[in-house]
Amino acid sequence: MSTIESSSRMKTNTTDISEVLIQYIYGIADNALILGQRLSELCGHGPNLETDIAGTNIALDLLGQTRGYYQYAAQLKGGDTTEDDIAYLRTEREYKNVLLVEQPNKHFGYVIARQFLYDMFHVMLLEKLQNSQDPTLAAIAKKGIKEVRYHQRFSSDWIKRLGDGTPESHEKIQEAINTLWTYTDELFHMTEADKKAVDMGVGVDASALKGEYYTRVRELLDASTLEVPEMKWFQKGGKQGIHTEHMGYLLADLQYMQRTYPGMKW
Amino acid sequence: MSTIESSSRMKTNTTDISEVLIQYIYGIADNALILGQRLSELCGHGPNLETDIAGTNIALDLLGQTRGYYQYAAQLKGGDTTEDDIAYLRTEREYKNVLLVEQPNKHFGYVIARQFLYDMFHVMLLEKLQNSQDPTLAAIAKKGIKEVRYHQRFSSDWIKRLGDGTPESHEKIQEAINTLWTYTDELFHMTEADKKAVDMGVGVDASALKGEYYTRVRELLDASTLEVPEMKWFQKGGKQGIHTEHMGYLLADLQYMQRTYPGMKW
Repeated sequence: MSTIESSSRMKTNTTDISEVLIQYIYGIADNALILGQRLSELCGHGPNLETDIAGTNIALDLLGQTRGYYQYAAQLKGGDTTEDDIAYLRTEREYKNVLLVEQPNKHFGYVIARQFLYDMFHVMLLEKLQNSQDPTLAAIAKKGIKEVRYHQRFSSDWIKRLGDGTPESHEKIQEAINTLWTYTDELFHMTEADKKAVDMGVGVDASALKGEYYTRVRELLDASTLEVPEMKWFQKGGKQGIHTEHMGYLLADLQYMQRTYPGMKW
Repeated sequence: MSTIESSSRMKTNTTDISEVLIQYIYGIADNALILGQRLSELCGHGPNLETDIAGTNIALDLLGQTRGYYQYAAQLKGGDTTEDDIAYLRTEREYKNVLLVEQPNKHFGYVIARQFLYDMFHVMLLEKLQNSQDPTLAAIAKKGIKEVRYHQRFSSDWIKRLGDGTPESHEKIQEAINTLWTYTDELFHMTEADKKAVDMGVGVDASALKGEYYTRVRELLDASTLEVPEMKWFQKGGKQGIHTEHMGYLLADLQYMQRTYPGMKW
């Protein structure tokens, strides 16, 4: 084998590894970006000042985590790519977030149910990601886990308060849980990039978290006098970039500034 | 005076006249674009098939009129400017529509009330614009007036049906009329471009339509058992490009395709 061939093969391998890592990062970070965007829509519209600020703080935490991931992805991509390009200049099919996080803020019950169903997964994911053999991902997870545990406490408390509250609050949070339940199974689907990242020792096997997730969620719903929906059929597609109709409107809002003033800086 | 000076002055005058005309056209056409966009959001979401199709047809009429106006404005601007640039690539402050037409589709009563309050004005405006000394504007008005008379019949019929319908429909359409009333006065404000266009014999003196407008609106509301709101203070700003918070979201949706794929063609 000539030196040129060998060097070319090595380059391909490095590129492959980077591409897997980038796709793996999108699969985690896009959830944080899109959920953060949904929460930030509520800034100034919360039911009371404390909840408004809490929701906005969670949005900021999620955007902060997103930056960490995207800065790393931009570095892996190389060239002139920046975190802003990744956040704002992809098309809908290139976002790999799960369908759960893009669902709209129909009422406060939906905001809490969506948050709770994601937080329960998010904590478990970051607990494992701390042990990634990729030091950057491990560091981001270690930093993020403290924030995400707080998110989970916030959303779990509200699930209890609404479930075990008035008949109206009970009915509304149950409706939201029932509606969003169909998006939970996708959290545990493994894409090709996910599988390769696990093989490389840098990614988390999300499919292995499923049993424990539903056990923990069930316990909390029981304690909140809420019913666990029975569902045999689940929605999926976000991880492959096939989104619900809400995603286009969300991206139109999210990307407006960068699309209108390309390359803008604050 | 040298020939060069004379030619330069003539050129300035032509440019001034074009600029007045362009601004005058925006003041009319942006209303059609933004109202059309609001209605098109309801495509597939109407309360029944007939109303859904009627609303979408009205949206199409308005977009058709918009094209006529923008094509003319693009011609006046010259260079490479196209109707699409004018429709999709201006920033918020450059849109000169009245605040009324950008108000959201909160419920069906708002859709009908907004349409009715604008249609009543729109018919009166185009009736006069048919006599514009600018043959292009006169021709667009002559073509549009037939469509707009149909819009007015549609929205007036619904005002009567809802006002004189069930207690719930009465309450909801009254709420919408009350809320949107504050945006009616702006219809008759005259910008600098409006005044100059009137002086040039090409524009309509909208301020002169005010008395007749409120008389006609009042008659229809009376006939619909609805109350005419009493209001001393009115909202304004759209004609100067100062819009309500709803406008940014509307433009984010409206402009998404052209911003994301610059220069795209269907």
